[in-house]
Amino acid sequence: MSKTTTMGVEIRFGDCDPAGIVFFPRYHRWMDAASLHFFMTCGVPPWHELELTTGIVGTPLLEHHARFVKSATYGEKLLITTNVVEWGAKVFKQKHVVTRGDDLICESTETRIFVVRDKVDRRKIRAIPVPEDIRAKCE
Amino acid sequence: MSKTTTMGVEIRFGDCDPAGIVFFPRYHRWMDAASLHFFMTCGVPPWHELELTTGIVGTPLLEHHARFVKSATYGEKLLITTNVVEWGAKVFKQKHVVTRGDDLICESTETRIFVVRDKVDRRKIRAIPVPEDIRAKCE
Amino acid sequence: MSKTTTMGVEIRFGDCDPAGIVFFPRYHRWMDAASLHFFMTCGVPPWHELELTTGIVGTPLLEHHARFVKSATYGEKLLITTNVVEWGAKVFKQKHVVTRGDDLICESTETRIFVVRDKVDRRKIRAIPVPEDIRAKCE
Amino acid sequence: MSKTTTMGVEIRFGDCDPAGIVFFPRYHRWMDAASLHFFMTCGVPPWHELELTTGIVGTPLLEHHARFVKSATYGEKLLITTNVVEWGAKVFKQKHVVTRGDDLICESTETRIFVVRDKVDRRKIRAIPVPEDIRAKCE
Repeated sequence: MSKTTTMGVEIRFGDCDPAGIVFFPRYHRWMDAASLHFFMTCGVPPWHELELTTGIVGTPLLEHHARFVKSATYGEKLLITTNVVEWGAKVFKQKHVVTRGDDLICESTETRIFVVRDKVDRRKIRAIPVPEDIRAKCE
Repeated sequence: MSKTTTMGVEIRFGDCDPAGIVFFPRYHRWMDAASLHFFMTCGVPPWHELELTTGIVGTPLLEHHARFVKSATYGEKLLITTNVVEWGAKVFKQKHVVTRGDDLICESTETRIFVVRDKVDRRKIRAIPVPEDIRAKCE
Repeated sequence: MSKTTTMGVEIRFGDCDPAGIVFFPRYHRWMDAASLHFFMTCGVPPWHELELTTGIVGTPLLEHHARFVKSATYGEKLLITTNVVEWGAKVFKQKHVVTRGDDLICESTETRIFVVRDKVDRRKIRAIPVPEDIRAKCE
Repeated sequence: MSKTTTMGVEIRFGDCDPAGIVFFPRYHRWMDAASLHFFMTCGVPPWHELELTTGIVGTPLLEHHARFVKSATYGEKLLITTNVVEWGAKVFKQKHVVTRGDDLICESTETRIFVVRDKVDRRKIRAIPVPEDIRAKCE
């Protein structure tokens, strides 16, 4: 399907909530970072460089489904394992599995699209087909 | 099923990413706030008060499934409509629908549990059945 | 010096850390929101609209000095009172005072500049003098 | 004065704002992480372990003063160099210098205190003198 990449995360005090465990939107921040980390590890430039040549400004989500299995707290280290499990013409599905040693902490499957910024009205962004050259680098 | 509550959100500059749109984990922060806002509007005290009497420290997620339909940016106002669509013995499903005027921006269904802090090892939290009195206030 | 504006904030569970109090960078997020809220209340459009006509993309900080007096937690409401205490040719000083009822929670004085995005290399931003028309709206 | 520690940070897409640069409260998150990283590198356990033995739940800020010199964006790596520049009986001053290669990005000096959770009303926290044994580990 695609290459598989890994990204380490150290959990910090400020990532945790009054229950003392990671506040779940933080996992989505880290998985979003792992999503871009996947592309950059596969040789794709960061979006702010791509924007200059292709107009691409990112890969927003259409949908995602996440399961949270165990909690984690600060001082612990996580590993996020990421790959693309399905390439469509317009969308792709990326999966992130977050582990702490042998423990599965959480996992999410995200449906994402590539978007470019409109050249006339820069406030607007629109979807484009999955770029062939980017897909080729990731397979 | 349950009462339905609404919570307003004003999108701020810092909620948006380099593409100029709301960074999606922010929606989960707001939906988490809407989750607690639902309980407090139904007459349940905030967790830090409940902790003193019942040990309850929050309602972490087991799972959630979200769809992102339209993007939004800062200076705009959102409305989050929240209710409980299913009560189980141990879990409950809460749904959040985020709108901007007539536009559906995103929605998520969350499976959550109630947890208490362990009295001996305060670093540990464990699940309890959905408290009857809390459920009664929300129906 | 300038008009004075106020902005309300409701503290949420996810704004608080394992000590159960607001994690201090959240105050800076809110004060940043109060900074833009000040300009918008004075009649200045949000930056994403200004960017199209003037190239202005925001008012980053050069410096700030904050004092934290009392702690606060979720379920509480804050008020942020904001004004500009000094206008320079290139910089301006904006002050935010955060209160909860009669309690002073924290305050910060920020030195900010106006920046525009470079038209050729869009990754670069550069400082401009404080725009006369924006200052006039705020006084 | 004290030992000096360093902590690396990789800037991510979601750390940046619509101007394309790091949103400044993120620097404070990282500096807060660097503050705890300093203590843990000096051999002090994380707060959630200390809480069980000493009641200490963290080191909130009384005050800080930060300067922002250059902007940074995602895909870049930062280094945060941290030490304690002054130990008082009740407070300590910790300094963080954030660099990207040879570039100074920002720096902040923070005045912090040690706090314990009240054993009766767990919602309350109160300041204690700087613990001798913790200071000894850091010098």
